[in-house]
Amino acid sequence: MPPLLRRRSPVSCSRLLLLRCSFSSSTVSLDVNISQPTYVVWGANTGVGKTLVSAGLGFSAISHSPSSFLYLKPLQTGFPVDSDSRFVVSKLTSLFRSSSPLFPLLASNHTLRVSVPASRALPGFNEESESSCCYEETRVGGGDAEEVCSRLVCKTLYAWKEAISPHLAVEREGMAIRDSDLREMLVRCLGFGGAKDSRKEMSYWRVIETAGGVASPGPSGTLQCDLYRPFRFPAILVGDGRLGGISTTISAYECLKLRGYDVAAIVLVDQGLANEVALLSYLRSRVHVFVLPPIPHDPLDDLKNWFVESRKVFDSLKETMAIAHSKRIERLQDMPRKAGDIFWWPFTQHQLVPLETVTVIDSRCGENFAVHKVCDKQDMIIPQFDACASWWTQGPDATFQIELARDMGYSAARYGHVMFPENVYEPALRCAELLLEGVGKGWASRTYYSDNGSTAVEIALKMAFRKFSFDQGIALDSDNGILGGRCYDFKVLALSGSYHGDTLGAMEAQAPSSYTSFRQQPWYSGRGLFLDPPMIFISDGVWNLSFPDAFLSYQLKDQKTRFCLRDELFCQTRDYSALAKCYSAYISRQLLQFYETSPSTYIAALIIEPVVQGAGGMQMIDPLFQRTLVSECRSRGIPVIFDEVFAGFWRLGRESAAELLGCSPDVACFGKLMTGGIIPLAVTLTTEAVFEAFKGGSKLMALLHGHSYSAHAMGCMAASKAIQWFKDPCTNINIDPEGRKMKELWDMQLVLQLSSLNGVRRVIAMGTLCAIELRADGSDVGYASLYASSLVQQLRDDGIYMRPLEDCNRRADVASGVRFSAEDIAQKDLSLLLTFFSTKVFSHFSGNLSSVAPEKRACFPYVYCFDFFPQDTGLSSLAGPFLHQIRHMSFKV
Amino acid sequence: MPPLLRRRSPVSCSRLLLLRCSFSSSTVSLDVNISQPTYVVWGANTGVGKTLVSAGLGFSAISHSPSSFLYLKPLQTGFPVDSDSRFVVSKLTSLFRSSSPLFPLLASNHTLRVSVPASRALPGFNEESESSCCYEETRVGGGDAEEVCSRLVCKTLYAWKEAISPHLAVEREGMAIRDSDLREMLVRCLGFGGAKDSRKEMSYWRVIETAGGVASPGPSGTLQCDLYRPFRFPAILVGDGRLGGISTTISAYECLKLRGYDVAAIVLVDQGLANEVALLSYLRSRVHVFVLPPIPHDPLDDLKNWFVESRKVFDSLKETMAIAHSKRIERLQDMPRKAGDIFWWPFTQHQLVPLETVTVIDSRCGENFAVHKVCDKQDMIIPQFDACASWWTQGPDATFQIELARDMGYSAARYGHVMFPENVYEPALRCAELLLEGVGKGWASRTYYSDNGSTAVEIALKMAFRKFSFDQGIALDSDNGILGGRCYDFKVLALSGSYHGDTLGAMEAQAPSSYTSFRQQPWYSGRGLFLDPPMIFISDGVWNLSFPDAFLSYQLKDQKTRFCLRDELFCQTRDYSALAKCYSAYISRQLLQFYETSPSTYIAALIIEPVVQGAGGMQMIDPLFQRTLVSECRSRGIPVIFDEVFAGFWRLGRESAAELLGCSPDVACFGKLMTGGIIPLAVTLTTEAVFEAFKGGSKLMALLHGHSYSAHAMGCMAASKAIQWFKDPCTNINIDPEGRKMKELWDMQLVLQLSSLNGVRRVIAMGTLCAIELRADGSDVGYASLYASSLVQQLRDDGIYMRPLEDCNRRADVASGVRFSAEDIAQKDLSLLLTFFSTKVFSHFSGNLSSVAPEKRACFPYVYCFDFFPQDTGLSSLAGPFLHQIRHMSFKV
Repeated sequence: MPPLLRRRSPVSCSRLLLLRCSFSSSTVSLDVNISQPTYVVWGANTGVGKTLVSAGLGFSAISHSPSSFLYLKPLQTGFPVDSDSRFVVSKLTSLFRSSSPLFPLLASNHTLRVSVPASRALPGFNEESESSCCYEETRVGGGDAEEVCSRLVCKTLYAWKEAISPHLAVEREGMAIRDSDLREMLVRCLGFGGAKDSRKEMSYWRVIETAGGVASPGPSGTLQCDLYRPFRFPAILVGDGRLGGISTTISAYECLKLRGYDVAAIVLVDQGLANEVALLSYLRSRVHVFVLPPIPHDPLDDLKNWFVESRKVFDSLKETMAIAHSKRIERLQDMPRKAGDIFWWPFTQHQLVPLETVTVIDSRCGENFAVHKVCDKQDMIIPQFDACASWWTQGPDATFQIELARDMGYSAARYGHVMFPENVYEPALRCAELLLEGVGKGWASRTYYSDNGSTAVEIALKMAFRKFSFDQGIALDSDNGILGGRCYDFKVLALSGSYHGDTLGAMEAQAPSSYTSFRQQPWYSGRGLFLDPPMIFISDGVWNLSFPDAFLSYQLKDQKTRFCLRDELFCQTRDYSALAKCYSAYISRQLLQFYETSPSTYIAALIIEPVVQGAGGMQMIDPLFQRTLVSECRSRGIPVIFDEVFAGFWRLGRESAAELLGCSPDVACFGKLMTGGIIPLAVTLTTEAVFEAFKGGSKLMALLHGHSYSAHAMGCMAASKAIQWFKDPCTNINIDPEGRKMKELWDMQLVLQLSSLNGVRRVIAMGTLCAIELRADGSDVGYASLYASSLVQQLRDDGIYMRPLEDCNRRADVASGVRFSAEDIAQKDLSLLLTFFSTKVFSHFSGNLSSVAPEKRACFPYVYCFDFFPQDTGLSSLAGPFLHQIRHMSFKV
Repeated sequence: MPPLLRRRSPVSCSRLLLLRCSFSSSTVSLDVNISQPTYVVWGANTGVGKTLVSAGLGFSAISHSPSSFLYLKPLQTGFPVDSDSRFVVSKLTSLFRSSSPLFPLLASNHTLRVSVPASRALPGFNEESESSCCYEETRVGGGDAEEVCSRLVCKTLYAWKEAISPHLAVEREGMAIRDSDLREMLVRCLGFGGAKDSRKEMSYWRVIETAGGVASPGPSGTLQCDLYRPFRFPAILVGDGRLGGISTTISAYECLKLRGYDVAAIVLVDQGLANEVALLSYLRSRVHVFVLPPIPHDPLDDLKNWFVESRKVFDSLKETMAIAHSKRIERLQDMPRKAGDIFWWPFTQHQLVPLETVTVIDSRCGENFAVHKVCDKQDMIIPQFDACASWWTQGPDATFQIELARDMGYSAARYGHVMFPENVYEPALRCAELLLEGVGKGWASRTYYSDNGSTAVEIALKMAFRKFSFDQGIALDSDNGILGGRCYDFKVLALSGSYHGDTLGAMEAQAPSSYTSFRQQPWYSGRGLFLDPPMIFISDGVWNLSFPDAFLSYQLKDQKTRFCLRDELFCQTRDYSALAKCYSAYISRQLLQFYETSPSTYIAALIIEPVVQGAGGMQMIDPLFQRTLVSECRSRGIPVIFDEVFAGFWRLGRESAAELLGCSPDVACFGKLMTGGIIPLAVTLTTEAVFEAFKGGSKLMALLHGHSYSAHAMGCMAASKAIQWFKDPCTNINIDPEGRKMKELWDMQLVLQLSSLNGVRRVIAMGTLCAIELRADGSDVGYASLYASSLVQQLRDDGIYMRPLEDCNRRADVASGVRFSAEDIAQKDLSLLLTFFSTKVFSHFSGNLSSVAPEKRACFPYVYCFDFFPQDTGLSSLAGPFLHQIRHMSFKV
């Protein structure tokens, strides 16, 4: 199998190496080599025989032929009286000795860190000695040091004296360990004897034995099933054969599943109750269940006979584990090819996706993907920071993800999905209450559920059109808009660069772009008057206000266009400025011109993305302009729709972007982050007045729009949880104590500094969003496209997953109603944006991110949005600081 | 609180009572009165002190003031040596005696059924005596029988001798009990001393104590957490205070959550390890955790002091439970009003929904909702059969629902949601593989994921249009369809009565109806040539083929229009018949006429719902006609789209409707049942040839359509599971052993008989679908609308949940391209269809459904579709047989 990744063009190689050098020292890699079988042994309870199983596996591994077996016991209490690794070493050496092997065994036992009370209890303890490590090595059989031998390496990572749970032992004996340190230590210890060290043909097994039951706390109090989750090693569950053991075994199994673990086998010691029969039946034989012979009651029995008797069971357990392991590896290696053969990825030109750039995601843990890669013929699982927040949907950190997982299981078990219309059930009601108390507060009174942003927008348009007809007295029983010879043609008022989704109705409400070209959807005609808005952004260290060409005829020369603080631009006193009057005049004139040229047409809705246009290019609109737009529409009886699918739920520092803008819509759409990034659900909120326009004696007056899974319970449950989690200062320390505002997350000094760099065109920093756009000349674009994909690849190799975003906003002026061909747009300036989005936990110590331990950080769905317009000259000077910054914020953990 | 439901108009009352009389005897009601607190006591393991907690709660309940306490122990092993109910009675009477109460206590202990070995061990056992029941009654204090007293009623439902798990006890001692019998017995026993029996002011508590741990098997082998799930009583979890107890307690808690239970509190006996601290921290104080004092080690201690010492803990535990109970009841009672205030239900005229008709769904268990109702001032939880399958999405039975719940938890924990484009992860890949091996077998090679039927159709249209342009050499860089002065106007070929979803693109592809009126979406114009198809249906005991008026000019007089067997109509030899030629000529002529009148227009896609049009009115189209249509389009290079969102995944007896039709599409859409009815996900499958039309050197050639949660992991995981579950004869006994075909589910004799009834217009029976349409005159319609809602209400009172479906297909001929106003359609013949859909498990003994125990039935997503055109005269004669039938099929279980 050739290495699929890490292959680079010779050109980019040297730069990449440089980058890797400068950053690698600051982080401890959590990359794990999974080429060889590595299993975690879990227990359904304490005292069910985990160590016997580990030892049995070890014996099976080392005694058939020269092999290596690594046994790790990360947490040991009751030490040194109890030491599972010592037990494994001593049992295996004695078993090995008596099995008349044809090759020698080299066995070692190493205890790495020991609490003070435990070290005092060590034989030969010496007050003077600093080190509390113990290391023993034994050789069984053979004499020639060069001879091929089996190796047994046993390690205890941390040990405490009292035989209690590690979190209590820490309380009583000290030696507190952070989860991240423990994980790093584990990775380091796993590194021993990898395939590079050992001869290729030698089999090599690694077993990690947990302490207590699956959900027993580790030293920090974190449950072990959560503690080891980032690695997601396959599991062996030692079940309980006693009375009650069916229950504890199934519960433990489900506890592991609820954390995303795969359980390869369950092993239990026979207690005469045939628990395995019930287990197999309940698990529908999906999981192998092995039964070990009863353990002799005599405490003096050395278990030698038991191990001999159990040998066959362990051999076949090991065989099962080996098969599961190779199946996994085979599948992982095969996935890119299969995906390329049968997937049809959205927004993807398959011809431009070589197999080796396909990312194989084995799992996600909070903000990181765990990605499978083959490097130097080794199968690696590598954490990769989800820097595009999976299309800006992601909110949860690892803790919140597991909370959501439990809620998803609960909701599926309690409701599955149930019919919504004329019914009520808790998740749908709770979610609606939370929405109306939150993003809808002060204006909305009705909740219309649907499945995604597009459908939410389609619904919003239908609502607004009806409200408009109703208010204007347009007879609603007319067909096709024709009544008494009069024809009604409805259009929306919208902004250039807008994006509202990919279904036809949502497309019609957005300005022409590559997404709406004839080749994409021949039915698109762009049913709107699309205005060019004034934009705001940071460049050269200040906030700038930039007017489109349409404003040329207005007297804007004396207008202040540079601002030191963002707040100046968002200040509502601007409503009384000359600029406000100018905006108002511009809008009025545009409307007038439009009506003059299209007399039979009505502007029946305004639809905007408040504050920031997302997918259209991460453009920040002057809030004064949007506020003026809303008020001009209000005065003309045009219903106002806010599409907050991208901006909603704290993306911009407030729960809703409307709050930031300082005015309310009649209808608003939400999605993406609403469910905490776990499941699709969208909602259209409205005022009671809009709702009233659908009331009547006939069902035909009602809004006849719905989807099969309207208001599905799991979605509503996830949303209820996420809405509360995000705004609760106890679960999100980035929120101010009243839960109304987000703390300033971005170090403004850094942002301003970045905006002053030569290659930077603009920066936007607000709430969870930081967008950095690089300068690019039109002539660079063709090249840039290829350049970008190589950069994307480099960043991925560097542990940062991102995906380029095309900027469909950057184009020549588009007059309303007239469509430009996609090709035109593309050829002129369809530059590549490299967009980093992140869901990374952010420090509440602003400007001092890297010093905060990840445990201390609160969950929050913020976004890095680095929009690159790559230009070769600028890049080398910029990539450094960017990557450095990302590294520091995301990876020094 | 007045009773919200069970209110009927005087007219319908007598008839309904009649119906109720004739059916009530055949079913045992599982309605449960939850006015009084009712809790289930679960254990994290066996031997953690469940009975102590039950007894402590009982003591707290009865000793403060005259009250009732019902203690139920459904399953007791180790009997008569062990008897938890005897323990409770004896402890409480002795505690009560020594607490110098001011009122007497009447205590009883009743053991209802005892295995033979256990009964032999009873004191005073007599071989002759048949009855194995034991009943004891004690009175403590007072003398006057009339005096107000506390009542303690303890019952053991089933008891076995050996102290092992009930499922093993059954194996060894007999007395097997079916789950349904156990549940009925439990409901009967809970009925004791309800509010009607006891004085209103008296408090009344009910506690059910389980056996062993949460997932310990019951007598049939079903885990207790699954066994009691239909009631979903709130839970008290007795945790484990010992070493390892944090783990078993959290696991047990999660096991309960994974079955949809609410846990009101965790109680544990102090063992000096402060396990409660870790529990509270992990559960974020969402669940109350109570700690009981350590239990005296002396086995001779009578625990009197312990109970006295624990008194305060039990009092506050009881208080917590009382608060949780009243909160639940308050919320349930309040939900209809709140829903009416803040929801905006799809397809619903809110003005026509009185509060008392709002259904409060507390949970779903397989095919039943658990509905909250207030009847005679009592709060009831009543199972209601989901006869509309929640918009035809439902597939799972109770077992499959719990399996899916675990998978949802696993998937959320393993992946959350991860980015799809250019990535691959197991659920998305597995799902695509299964789709291509299943519904796409033989033709499809690419999988495009989206969120629902509407988006799948929007994507399908984009695909077909591109394929058409590509094949026709229409320059793809043209803008707006205008190139070199030539204008391209694309339309679809479709059938009247079609329905493809509610987003604009999907709407445009369907024929005009109330759903597409100007008042619903002013942008709709109906971009299609809509043909009237020939229909097939059963009436008067035979299958009929009926031609629309458009066929008048063809020589069809000699054409056979009556068929004895459905198979005759689906037989592919008809392709060579005269009728096939006639269809072909009809289609050609329609296309010719269309092109003559619209020269600049292209028919760029055919889109049909194969075999049955669902939401449009449950109309079955002559398969020969659809096959001819496909072949005519093929010969003209028009891409063919099958919308199988409704018909796919066994709805019509085959995995895909295409299989049934005997021809393949170029593009097909799936949704609804695909995920087993748990979560929204849709897919558009295509041939490689369609995919090729999007290949090119530029991303602009790619299909630029996607949604935030494209290919979300939970949806793909659910779909993978459901696709396999449905077609595996081990999990679905309605599937033939090869997994290719469904067994015939409908008793054809009955179906033909129904179709011969006077009031029946037509019947359709196929696969999981049985549709029965009643005759109605146009003049009945206005009245029928009200009549229908009263019938709907009556059926709901009778335990059948359904929702009327309007028939938008039944209208005057609609010439292609010309729209009729919705009002026209409505006024003329918008009759009400009462549609029953069900996911009910169906017998594999055809024609003998009622005799099959529910445990023996396999899961399957079938549908009853009873389309009523209610006519007063016909109804009384019809309602009886229908309801009888429904009862027998669905409720005699």
